[in-house]
Amino acid sequence: MEIKDFITRDESAMYYLCGYSADNAILMRFGSEFKFITDARYSTEAHELCKKNIALDIIESNDLLVEAKKQIAQHNIKSLCFDPMCMCVEEYHILKDIVSLIPTPNFTQIMRMQKTDDEINILQQAQLLNLQAIHTFGQYVSDQGKGKSEKYLWYKIADTLSNCGQYPLSFDPIVGIEGNAAKPHALPSDTTFLQNGDTLLLDCGLKYKRYCADCTRTALFFNNSIMFEKEQDFTILDTTANKHALSAYEKQKIYDLVKKAQMTTIENLRAGMSGKEIDSIARNIIEAGGYGKYFTHSTGHGIGLDIHEMPFISRRSETIIEDGMVFSIEPGIYIPQTFGVRIEDLVVVKQGKAIVLN
Amino acid sequence: MEIKDFITRDESAMYYLCGYSADNAILMRFGSEFKFITDARYSTEAHELCKKNIALDIIESNDLLVEAKKQIAQHNIKSLCFDPMCMCVEEYHILKDIVSLIPTPNFTQIMRMQKTDDEINILQQAQLLNLQAIHTFGQYVSDQGKGKSEKYLWYKIADTLSNCGQYPLSFDPIVGIEGNAAKPHALPSDTTFLQNGDTLLLDCGLKYKRYCADCTRTALFFNNSIMFEKEQDFTILDTTANKHALSAYEKQKIYDLVKKAQMTTIENLRAGMSGKEIDSIARNIIEAGGYGKYFTHSTGHGIGLDIHEMPFISRRSETIIEDGMVFSIEPGIYIPQTFGVRIEDLVVVKQGKAIVLN
Repeated sequence: MEIKDFITRDESAMYYLCGYSADNAILMRFGSEFKFITDARYSTEAHELCKKNIALDIIESNDLLVEAKKQIAQHNIKSLCFDPMCMCVEEYHILKDIVSLIPTPNFTQIMRMQKTDDEINILQQAQLLNLQAIHTFGQYVSDQGKGKSEKYLWYKIADTLSNCGQYPLSFDPIVGIEGNAAKPHALPSDTTFLQNGDTLLLDCGLKYKRYCADCTRTALFFNNSIMFEKEQDFTILDTTANKHALSAYEKQKIYDLVKKAQMTTIENLRAGMSGKEIDSIARNIIEAGGYGKYFTHSTGHGIGLDIHEMPFISRRSETIIEDGMVFSIEPGIYIPQTFGVRIEDLVVVKQGKAIVLN
Repeated sequence: MEIKDFITRDESAMYYLCGYSADNAILMRFGSEFKFITDARYSTEAHELCKKNIALDIIESNDLLVEAKKQIAQHNIKSLCFDPMCMCVEEYHILKDIVSLIPTPNFTQIMRMQKTDDEINILQQAQLLNLQAIHTFGQYVSDQGKGKSEKYLWYKIADTLSNCGQYPLSFDPIVGIEGNAAKPHALPSDTTFLQNGDTLLLDCGLKYKRYCADCTRTALFFNNSIMFEKEQDFTILDTTANKHALSAYEKQKIYDLVKKAQMTTIENLRAGMSGKEIDSIARNIIEAGGYGKYFTHSTGHGIGLDIHEMPFISRRSETIIEDGMVFSIEPGIYIPQTFGVRIEDLVVVKQGKAIVLN
């Protein structure tokens, strides 16, 4: 897709193209020239931080749209691409009388879909820092986790990820103990406390140089020990009282099925496949195992400056996967009120195959 | 303004009207009946948490807009209010063929502008917890703040506010040392360290029962002591070396001018005034003091479920202030690269006058 002239307020697109973004700014591209319109709070920083090797005008204004109209008229621009899922009705009505607006869904995401080597290196580093924080958190839970509330553990992983404010988070972490792990998006509870034999689902990510990491592990807390690794042994639970609704055997079966779906998808996905073909690799395995109706979300999502961006690895995604794309593979099985497992890694496609970032 | 039938995705409006919200949901009101459309991730929680004393249908769908169209057709709805600053072009084009969409800017904010006694009590409690956290942070800075980076202090106030994850934050705190306090929205620096004689600007807030607190104090760090109170004595700096660009006398003059503007505005504002009349009380004082061009933002903003909501206390605000409205009064003076002062409290209007929440 060739996109020439456009208008956007998307901060990730601004940062990607100009090296700087602000929450009150409009970016337009006219041919090879960028117009970055922002207010007085940000214009000094914009001058300092925007890329110097591109043709870029920084324009200070306290009415961004009025300024945008002025620029469009001055440069005699006849049409502009815009994203109809991102532009509000008000802005559309103000602009449409002076310029032809061409609906171009997701054009800023499509631009950013294939990562450069520099971006891949940053994402690799982000995920490495994320995995280190998860490891540190695992040591904490082993040492002091017993009896702590889900909410406190949620606070603790967030605090560990941030490393005293050094790294922002990609998203609010998810910490689910036992049955709470079956609610994909529940807030942490302050009345659920970690006990021996509980399963803990942890989904978290930090940002490094503005790029997002993301990882999910599901792990057994037993005898004051937890390891957020892909190898998990639930069969040791046989010796404990049958306090949970599922037997140790069933837990192991569900866990192994998710692990198989995740690893097989990573091994077998190839450049040239569509998002939905890759999704079906994981989905078919879970369906064949008899748990299809408990896999209630997509297999994965692209990641970069945004935590969720194209390509999507879902039942409906027609996007063709190519070298340089980075996305998650994260199947899951959720038995309501009872037990939840999700395993997630990030992969980059290189020479047609997936390589795990770790 | 009478608003009958409407459509919105605004989470604060959903929570306000229904007691629950989700980030993928559409709320419509048809007469006295609400239609709350959301996906499978949220529908169980919606059933648990939505108000029971209102006529409310919770409808689960994986395509919210298709379902919204279906409901509009089924109930034979001819027109719906919407906010043109919030609805995207895509949604507008999908809906406009089946229903007349009436642009109604800010209607969800206008609904929430006058707070109930319950809301005022929650906001009061939120600000009390906020002030307690600021006090605790002040003790920390007095004890251990010397030499700490701005970024570490930023981390520390955020951590103190959250109280181990108990309270979300209303916004990312602002911590500015000396000249950095003059940048109203700068990120905290990891190369600026708190030294004896520095001025620290702190702007922060936590959320309690989903309502936002917000407070700004500007305070002198001297002899390992800082008090985030409105009384500040910069004249003790006379004894230190002249390491800053402004004299102690000038700092005191600027500080006292901001304080006078803030307190006079709170004393003199009345129900029946417009937002811009109230803004002009503060602005006139700072202009008369000779620092008008350094007061670069509005005097205040409404606060509630959103950190910034109507009424705005700005040069352009025509909103008439009434009993039950809650907003900030926060004038400031910023000498670029040199010194910045802002003082902010929240007030509620009762019997025509402002009462400070503290």
